[in-house]
Amino acid sequence: MILVGRNLSPYTRRVAVSLDLMEMPFERRELATATDVEAIKGYNPLGRVPALELPDGEVLIESAAILDHLDEMAGPGLRLTPVAGPARRAVMRLCAFATGAMDKAVQAYYEETRRPEDVRWPAYAARGDDQVRAGLSELEKAARTAADGGSDWLVGDRLTQADVTATVTLDFVNTVRPGLMTDGDMPALHALAERCNALPPFAKTRP
Amino acid sequence: MILVGRNLSPYTRRVAVSLDLMEMPFERRELATATDVEAIKGYNPLGRVPALELPDGEVLIESAAILDHLDEMAGPGLRLTPVAGPARRAVMRLCAFATGAMDKAVQAYYEETRRPEDVRWPAYAARGDDQVRAGLSELEKAARTAADGGSDWLVGDRLTQADVTATVTLDFVNTVRPGLMTDGDMPALHALAERCNALPPFAKTRP
Repeated sequence: MILVGRNLSPYTRRVAVSLDLMEMPFERRELATATDVEAIKGYNPLGRVPALELPDGEVLIESAAILDHLDEMAGPGLRLTPVAGPARRAVMRLCAFATGAMDKAVQAYYEETRRPEDVRWPAYAARGDDQVRAGLSELEKAARTAADGGSDWLVGDRLTQADVTATVTLDFVNTVRPGLMTDGDMPALHALAERCNALPPFAKTRP
Repeated sequence: MILVGRNLSPYTRRVAVSLDLMEMPFERRELATATDVEAIKGYNPLGRVPALELPDGEVLIESAAILDHLDEMAGPGLRLTPVAGPARRAVMRLCAFATGAMDKAVQAYYEETRRPEDVRWPAYAARGDDQVRAGLSELEKAARTAADGGSDWLVGDRLTQADVTATVTLDFVNTVRPGLMTDGDMPALHALAERCNALPPFAKTRP
């Protein structure tokens, strides 16, 4: 399999981490949407990352759709999203807060640093940042509840896609919106991310 | 169940259509992100629609996560995304092109009509429109292949979430980016949308 995209993209990084956690070997094509858009379009005509080329040449796009297929391939022992029921809903809910925060961090980052200076709109970046904080706050609540219940992980007693995506989101926000969180903000979420980032699949993809 | 959001949001409309196709009764709260953001935050702290309140008070967010739960509840006869295998990948792939086009249509629409006039950047709207066309082109290809194979539907021989999301996306693009497609553009996709929009779940939610 070939994963297209760089770890700076949190959508790409969550796939890279998941492939590694599921013990699936893969190659990388480190293409960036800013500079390699024509090459990316060869995998995904929309020009977005990640894309995953399967051994038979089929190309999957969009991180959630890619992860859905990887879970199916991994089987019950290694899948990262529970197959059904309340635990599946809990993982998907936390991933929705995390990817929502990612989307809005991209928006705020783009507004403040990538648009030409004369067409920036600070209020829009601020609104995005508020939504980032709202999404992270939901992750913090879940991390605190888990810790209070004696678990190291957000859902149940093992690492799931919720932990992967929460960690990747926090790292991304700290990279592109430095200073959005002040010291001591969201301690349970930071503790969770520290535990994850100590594991090789996270450590080696840290952007 | 209570569905939060208006049909003008294609993410909300695809959930509304799916609930109806799955024969699940629901109430509506017609809240708009532009004017009712505080009320929406009561359901989803991120302030985004759709949200779906389940009978026990649990609230699901993000259309893909909501649809995943509805498929599980609906069971094999009524689910709109196949449970596994190549057909599931095909539906998810087409949904990814459709929701990617939705995302980019929102971006172009926002850039050209919702931002203050002095901070608009026409090149950004144009780039979004290119991505919308790229996503719709993939849907057109799939619709043409299906029609050539004698099927009325994008994947297999029955209506799936791919048909729902493709139709909702096309209607949304035609609403917020009128003129993006010229007469006769993407005829197979238009024919598919016409077939879907003739069905009551689509007809009654058409914005």
